[in-house]
Amino acid sequence: MKLKVYADRMSQPSRAVIIFCKVNGIEFDEVLIILAKRQQLSPEFKEINPLGKVPTIVDGRLKLFESHAILIYLSSAFPSVADHWYPNDLSKRAKIHSVLDWHHSNLRPGAAGYVMNSVLAPFLGGSLDSKAAAEAEQILTKSLSTLETFWLKGNAKFLLGSNQPSIADLSLVCELMQLQVLDEKDRLRLFSPYKKVEEWIENTRKATQPHFDVVHKTLYGAKDKFEKQRKMGTTTVSKPGFQSKM
Amino acid sequence: MKLKVYADRMSQPSRAVIIFCKVNGIEFDEVLIILAKRQQLSPEFKEINPLGKVPTIVDGRLKLFESHAILIYLSSAFPSVADHWYPNDLSKRAKIHSVLDWHHSNLRPGAAGYVMNSVLAPFLGGSLDSKAAAEAEQILTKSLSTLETFWLKGNAKFLLGSNQPSIADLSLVCELMQLQVLDEKDRLRLFSPYKKVEEWIENTRKATQPHFDVVHKTLYGAKDKFEKQRKMGTTTVSKPGFQSKM
Repeated sequence: MKLKVYADRMSQPSRAVIIFCKVNGIEFDEVLIILAKRQQLSPEFKEINPLGKVPTIVDGRLKLFESHAILIYLSSAFPSVADHWYPNDLSKRAKIHSVLDWHHSNLRPGAAGYVMNSVLAPFLGGSLDSKAAAEAEQILTKSLSTLETFWLKGNAKFLLGSNQPSIADLSLVCELMQLQVLDEKDRLRLFSPYKKVEEWIENTRKATQPHFDVVHKTLYGAKDKFEKQRKMGTTTVSKPGFQSKM
Repeated sequence: MKLKVYADRMSQPSRAVIIFCKVNGIEFDEVLIILAKRQQLSPEFKEINPLGKVPTIVDGRLKLFESHAILIYLSSAFPSVADHWYPNDLSKRAKIHSVLDWHHSNLRPGAAGYVMNSVLAPFLGGSLDSKAAAEAEQILTKSLSTLETFWLKGNAKFLLGSNQPSIADLSLVCELMQLQVLDEKDRLRLFSPYKKVEEWIENTRKATQPHFDVVHKTLYGAKDKFEKQRKMGTTTVSKPGFQSKM
């Protein structure tokens, strides 16, 4: 039975998993779980993942969620995946785990918290929270600085001094791509001090084309929609289900 | 050269790594980095881990931090570690990654956030924050409920239906052990609805004795100190450096 990927392309970890499968020639059926319609909480989906989160995969008897765990599993279970995505070398692999763990406690709450509290909340029936946005911005800025000066140290194209991408590059870049929905001036203000980060995002995009842009199409569309609404000075749209669910 | 573990036993992920090494007969030198004295920020330690976090290990040329990454590396690099800690079976291993990722976004912010905002902050030069404590308690309670009904589903002694502990059991139980510093009534109020969680903590403790209690001795001592101070109605102690640093 073919691999099933339950996902919503508006969720950044869902995008990472879908891009990974496409880039590596892993055949799969994509099952759309529309977060904006709360389909992740339906009884049918909760049979697959009782915690109601996407992305979730089903491969034979295995039901698995959490995007990092999924990327590691796919790298290990599908022989078509090149070694650089999740190296067999113990030290290299350990460093990738280290970046992925760092992502959880730093870049993720920074990026997701900032986008939610500075842009998305009104679209999800909540209200903007400038204090929470400022706190998240601090975490985000510190994380971008750590990426620039530590994880991207040296002249390599990807994280950890590598010249080929790993699952950590894909996962973290997809996280940062959600900042596309910010007002362009705001996005540039946040990113402009971090030239290596900007280059690395572009390197990761190029290394995974054309799938990267195809899978981000939904996000690019939403960016345009937000932009128009900002110009019209209104935020009265239906819930787009933008937040990360994993 | 022998493995070096840079740690402070007041930090829950440091305890997990130290217990793991002792249980599995991994020889190591423990290098104390006193968080209360901010030694993690010293130039000497930043040579080893520029991000200034414990636990950090040095094994040969590899410098590694993030406790989950360390536990996975040690399980893979030291042949003395039994398979159940980090199984070779791909599906079992994937499930362990899934629990560890879930830990990052749920149990960790719930437990650490609650302890910080309801007990520790005054000891660290800050002040208690009842709103932040209430928010963290919600995350903690939801996480304990998910442990009880999902991760500990069935009659097995450990997570994921296993009858032997994995690195996920050790990591998550060490996280929950920090709740020992709460007022006993408060701790019982939080834990009493979750009988399986209580049994699982005890199962993990028993499976890793005598090392579990030896390594938690510092925490048990702090618990007594807090208890006395609560009875005396004072919190005027010097910074004990209780918060998780990884």
